[in-house]
Order: sequence, then structure tokens, then C-alpha cells
Amino acid sequence: MTAQTSAAESGVRGDDNGFTLRAPDGTSYRVDLTREVLSPANPLLAECCEGRRVVAFTGPTVDRLYGRQLRAYLDARFAPGTWSVRVLAGGEDRKRMETVEEICALAKSAGLDRGGVMLAVGGGVTCDLVGFAAAIYCRGVRYVKVNTTLVGQIDVGVGVKTGINALGTKNMLGAYHPPHASLNDPAFLRSLAPRDIRCGLGETAKMAIIKDARLFRTLEECPQVFQRPYATPASLTEDGLGRRGVEDYVLRTSMRLMMEELCPNLREHDLARLVDFGHTFGPVMETASDYRIAHGESVAIDMALSSELARVLGLLDARDCERIIALIDALGLPVFDPETCTPELMDRALKASWERRGRRLHLVVPDGIGSAVFVDDLDDIPGAALQEALDALAARAQDASAAAPLTAAC
Amino acid sequence: MTAQTSAAESGVRGDDNGFTLRAPDGTSYRVDLTREVLSPANPLLAECCEGRRVVAFTGPTVDRLYGRQLRAYLDARFAPGTWSVRVLAGGEDRKRMETVEEICALAKSAGLDRGGVMLAVGGGVTCDLVGFAAAIYCRGVRYVKVNTTLVGQIDVGVGVKTGINALGTKNMLGAYHPPHASLNDPAFLRSLAPRDIRCGLGETAKMAIIKDARLFRTLEECPQVFQRPYATPASLTEDGLGRRGVEDYVLRTSMRLMMEELCPNLREHDLARLVDFGHTFGPVMETASDYRIAHGESVAIDMALSSELARVLGLLDARDCERIIALIDALGLPVFDPETCTPELMDRALKASWERRGRRLHLVVPDGIGSAVFVDDLDDIPGAALQEALDALAARAQDASAAAPLTAAC
Repeated sequence: MTAQTSAAESGVRGDDNGFTLRAPDGTSYRVDLTREVLSPANPLLAECCEGRRVVAFTGPTVDRLYGRQLRAYLDARFAPGTWSVRVLAGGEDRKRMETVEEICALAKSAGLDRGGVMLAVGGGVTCDLVGFAAAIYCRGVRYVKVNTTLVGQIDVGVGVKTGINALGTKNMLGAYHPPHASLNDPAFLRSLAPRDIRCGLGETAKMAIIKDARLFRTLEECPQVFQRPYATPASLTEDGLGRRGVEDYVLRTSMRLMMEELCPNLREHDLARLVDFGHTFGPVMETASDYRIAHGESVAIDMALSSELARVLGLLDARDCERIIALIDALGLPVFDPETCTPELMDRALKASWERRGRRLHLVVPDGIGSAVFVDDLDDIPGAALQEALDALAARAQDASAAAPLTAAC
Repeated sequence: MTAQTSAAESGVRGDDNGFTLRAPDGTSYRVDLTREVLSPANPLLAECCEGRRVVAFTGPTVDRLYGRQLRAYLDARFAPGTWSVRVLAGGEDRKRMETVEEICALAKSAGLDRGGVMLAVGGGVTCDLVGFAAAIYCRGVRYVKVNTTLVGQIDVGVGVKTGINALGTKNMLGAYHPPHASLNDPAFLRSLAPRDIRCGLGETAKMAIIKDARLFRTLEECPQVFQRPYATPASLTEDGLGRRGVEDYVLRTSMRLMMEELCPNLREHDLARLVDFGHTFGPVMETASDYRIAHGESVAIDMALSSELARVLGLLDARDCERIIALIDALGLPVFDPETCTPELMDRALKASWERRGRRLHLVVPDGIGSAVFVDDLDDIPGAALQEALDALAARAQDASAAAPLTAAC
């Protein structure tokens, strides 16, 4: 949904139900936090479709867990014959053009025209694919998403990027296609695999490290959030929040921080983006490991490496560097991967980022807790500094494998 | 290029070099009329690329006629190693996803990143394909086009639509991707095949019939414009224009009329579009004839049929209907095709348009010379009316094949 607006009105506004983003170029969309999104008593999802024909796409896992609820919802809220559900095979390796064409063919066979809605119910892969299909089907149809993963709810789901992997490069082809609506129901997070929760926490940690010391402290005090039972951390007790309160605080804060960062630069005309923290070395690790390393894990390792680099370059003091790496570790995320964290690959990653970002490096590194700066030129990162940072992480990994796994206090 | 603007400023403004369109949603782009666009003395094309890396795409015919000039221009105006030219096989049947992927692969192998430029030098097919590739490559790169056909210069080239045929449907997948610049050099028209000129004149006639009685009169007085030598028509003599003046008048007027119609509705949120005149029955004819009927020819037949329908429905008087059909005929375009102009196919075309336009018909029919109205509902076109209109055209075609071909007076 695009609407005209003036630069003065642009920004992110929160309310009881979520956030509205208005970009300076006039693009506007909402991300909602809602409960029981698939209960027929909740009108929100149906309202987003306004009686239009809907084709819902989901993956096998979401279909197994929520497919019955989804169909019951559509059956209760939509006219017979105006909705259908299609299940797409999952996996990062499905993020390719053939799958987008398959989605378009399924939509066409379901009778979807340019007045229809493509609905994605799933995680990042489903949303990237369905969003891209929605961007090009009839030159763009309405796109509504229900984000079922933590990464989806705080990262992919709050932005406008869609895309597929192609020509040996992650997200090589795609579109900026704002969702008409993006719905986050925290209940989905209860059924997530622990690894997927951890990957989402990697993105939350990212926003905390570069933007928000209070969120950082909350994660430090409570690294099990969304994972296991825990006591309310001290940093939030003053607000009288319970467990659900902590989760809501982490979710809402992560969503808001991400949307605030995206808002002035929704289509990435400025290639110096703070939210690229953790996304410089990571893409090469994912590709080189043939996606053995999940996206959130590559972000974690990249954040650790970028922090060590900042320390070596004298931009970040050793204590803060230690706190950052300890937090990543406490969240259950890796900080090193011996197979891909080689000087050769990491150097290649720097050069690839430099190319991707318009021949500037724009490497984001923390210069404190909740604060970050850019290292803009390739020359600012001598090979020796990269080597020293990698060595520090390798040594830490060796120590960790000798020691017992960390357990957090709360 | 998008820029912020207010609704008050939106519109099409002409100047000595072309037109600037500012849409109410903030989208803004220029279409330039320029001379000797590929002469190294003309800086315009190079300025549109601002020293960025450029990959130029063209078809075999344009490459044969202008490839040497294009390379000489790029060589003279761009740094060594920052430009390349790729030749794509031509034809409407190449407008498919594989070709878009091929364009992206060629761009990647030429080192194009998101700061680069995709340049299309060619007609509608080349521009539709390269424009769509530019829309999805790195989620959108700068797109510059040099339109070499008459259809390109007054229709495809002045809008923002890109796309490919898929799932048995013309332009099924695509994007609205405004060009950074669109350059029209009338000199290209001298090397066009007569059939391609006629197809372009079909689109010019379209704008004249629905919007501009003076342009209509000029075409009536001089149907050979762009085709053969002719005297300056009476409707323009008062302005003291010569041959080049007439061509410029027809080109500039067609461009302006089209841009004015597109401007308030650039992304087709309103599906009732006057410029869809000639585009209701046509797409089915093209597909059913396996593209034996060229696009401009299908537009011509569709305009004739829509005009006869308007006459049968009492919306257009018989004399104006006769003038419209006589003009299409005088331009050398068909007004009937016995193989595809069957009641069954034309009825199917009406239903397909009804579906495509959000379950409204929005059929554009002239109600005078330079004026048109919408017939909005399927029920407003009884089967008998369609049959009567088709019979009138069939009878005319039979008469024409018995008589000598028309020759125009000027």
C-alpha cells in the first residue's frame, strides 16, 4: 500500500496493536502484533483481504502444525470458492526462480487476478518467495504475510525486501514490495525449533548491539527468552512485566528498532546501513558452507568477528567486546566456524560487500554497547587486523570446546 | 528515478527537448526527443549513465544497423572496461522468464552491481525484457532506454510497464519500473520495416481517436507520415511546418497524449483506462494467431471492432465510425481478420478483459472523433450487437478485397 505523504510525517509510530511505517517516498505499511491470528474470532487477517480472492501459501511444517486452523479460518471468514491453500516444499535451496514461477502458476490456476491477494503464512523463505511472486504477478498484487518464525517477526517480516538466490549469489534477484499487512502472533514462536529461535535471537542481538543498550541488558539477563522458562530480568522488573511481558518487550523493541532503521532508506538508496551489521562476512559463510550454517548463525559469527575487528582497530574497548561475544554465546549461537572463517574467505567476503555496496565497504562495527559506526574503506582493514580478529575467535572457540557449555544465571 | 512531490505538482510538462512526467505518487521520469543520439557529439545518453558501469542490450536487427555506432559511442564516452554490448535473439516468443534470467546472467558476468545501468536499445520486446530484468536485478537497477521503433517511441517507451508472457497470457508477469531516462531519436524510424511503422501508426491513431481531433485530421490528411514522401497537410500548413515538422508534431503529440493519460494512473490502480482502447479483443487475437497478427495490427482490428460496436450500440454516429475505419485502412492497417474475428473468440476476449480489469468490462469505445467513453458492464454488450459489428467488418473486408487498394490524396 503506497500513499502520499510528506517528509515531515515520515517515521515509525507505535500503538497498542503494532507499528505504522511511513517512508519519505510515500510508501506506508503496518506491522501488527496480534493474538490468535488464526482464530475465526479474530477479524484482522480477513480485514486485510477485504473480501478479495485469496491464495494462501505455506510450507510443509507450518501446514502440519497450523494448516487445519488456517483452512478453518479461511472457511469461516471467506466466501466459498474465493480462497485456497497451497503447500510449497521448504528449504533455502527452494529460493529460486522455478519456485516463483510455480507460485504464479498455482495462483493462476486458483483464478487469482490483479485484484486478488497472495497470502504467505510462514518464515523467511516462504515470505521471500511469495512476496517476490506477488511483486511480479500481474505486475504486482496485494501481499499479506503472517510471520511464523522469530526471524520473520522481527526482521524479514517488518521490511519490504523479497527475493531469490540466483547466479551463485544470495538474494541476487528480487523486488522491494511492501506488504499490505504483516501480522505477528507470538504464539507461533512456541512451536519453533530451538535452532530457529536462536537464529531469531541473533537478529534481536544485532539490533541491541548497534542501537539499544537496554535491550542488550535484557538479553544478557535473560538469554533464554522464547527458549526456556526464566525469571523476569532485573532490567524489566521496574515495569512490573511478567514472562509474556518480557517476550512482548523483546519482540516490540526489536520490531520498532528495525523499522526505524529501515524507514528513511526503505529501498536502500543509501548503501551505508546499520542493519547490515552481521551481514558482511555472513553471506559468503552461508554459501561456502552450502547452507549448513543457517542465516542467523552466520549473522552471529559475523557480529563476533566484526566486534573483534573493532577491538583490534581500537574502536571498541575490550570489555564491551567481551560482553558482546559472551551474549552471542549465551544465546546459544556460534561465534566461530573453523571451516569457513579462513582469512582467504573472509577477505573475499569483504571484497564482495565492497562491490555490493557501490564500491564502499560500509562495514558496521560496534563502538560500544548499543552504538555502532561504519568502517567505510577496504584499506581501513589491514590483513593483519583481520587475521588477529580471527585468531582471537579461534582461540576462544578452542577454550569453549574444552570447557563446559555456558549456562545463564536467571 | 523517484522523487517526492505533491499532487498539485503532478502532470506532464513539455519543453524543447521532451517531456517530464510527475505522477501523484511521486514517481518522476523524462522522455527526451533528441537527434543523433548515438553520435559521440551528443552527450545525452552518457549523461543518463553518470559514469556508471553499463551493459547495453540490443536485438540482432538493431545490432546489424546501429551496433557499430553504439559501440563507437560507448567507446568514446565511457571509460575502458566499464561498458559492454550484448545481443539478444529477437521475437515476441523470446518474451519469457528464461530470457530475463539470461539478461541477468549476462549483466552479472559483465560485472554489473546495483550501482550499474542496464541500457536497452531496441523496440518493445527488447525494452519489455531488459526493463523487467532491470526491475529485479539486485532488486532494481537503473534502467535507460533508447527506443528504436515507432511503437517504442510513443507507447512502450513513454510508460513504466515491463513484462513477459507466461502461463499462456500476454504480459502475465512483470513490474512497473520507471526508466531513469527514455530517449527517442526519430532518425531510427527511417530504417524501420513498413509493417513496424504501420503498427506504430496504429497506436498514434488510437490516441487521436480517443483524445485529439486535430491529430486525427492530420493523420487523415497524411496517412503516409513516416512511410512515404508527402505534402504538408492542410491542418498543419498554418504553422508553417515542413515534413520534419509533421513528423515531430505527430511524435510529440502522441507522446504527450499518452503520458498525460498514464500520469494520474501510472501503476494502473484504476482499471478503467482510456489507453486500453484497442486492447480488449486484441490480446486474444494475437495469442490465437500465434503472433501471426502483430500487436499494432491487433490494436487496429480491435479499434475497428470497438467503433462498429459503438455504432451498433448508438454511441457513435455512422459518419464518425466510417471516418475512423477509413483512417485505420488508409494507414495500411487491417480492420478485420476472418480467422480470429469469430463471435466465440471475441466473446471470450470480452470475458478475459472483464476478469483482467477486476470483473468490470471498461471497454473503451469512441463516441466521436477525439473522444471516447467506457462501456462498463458485460451485459451492456448483447451477443447480437457483437455479431452485427463483426458482420459489418466482414462485409467491408469482402468489398475491399474486391476493390483496388485505397490510395490517399496528399
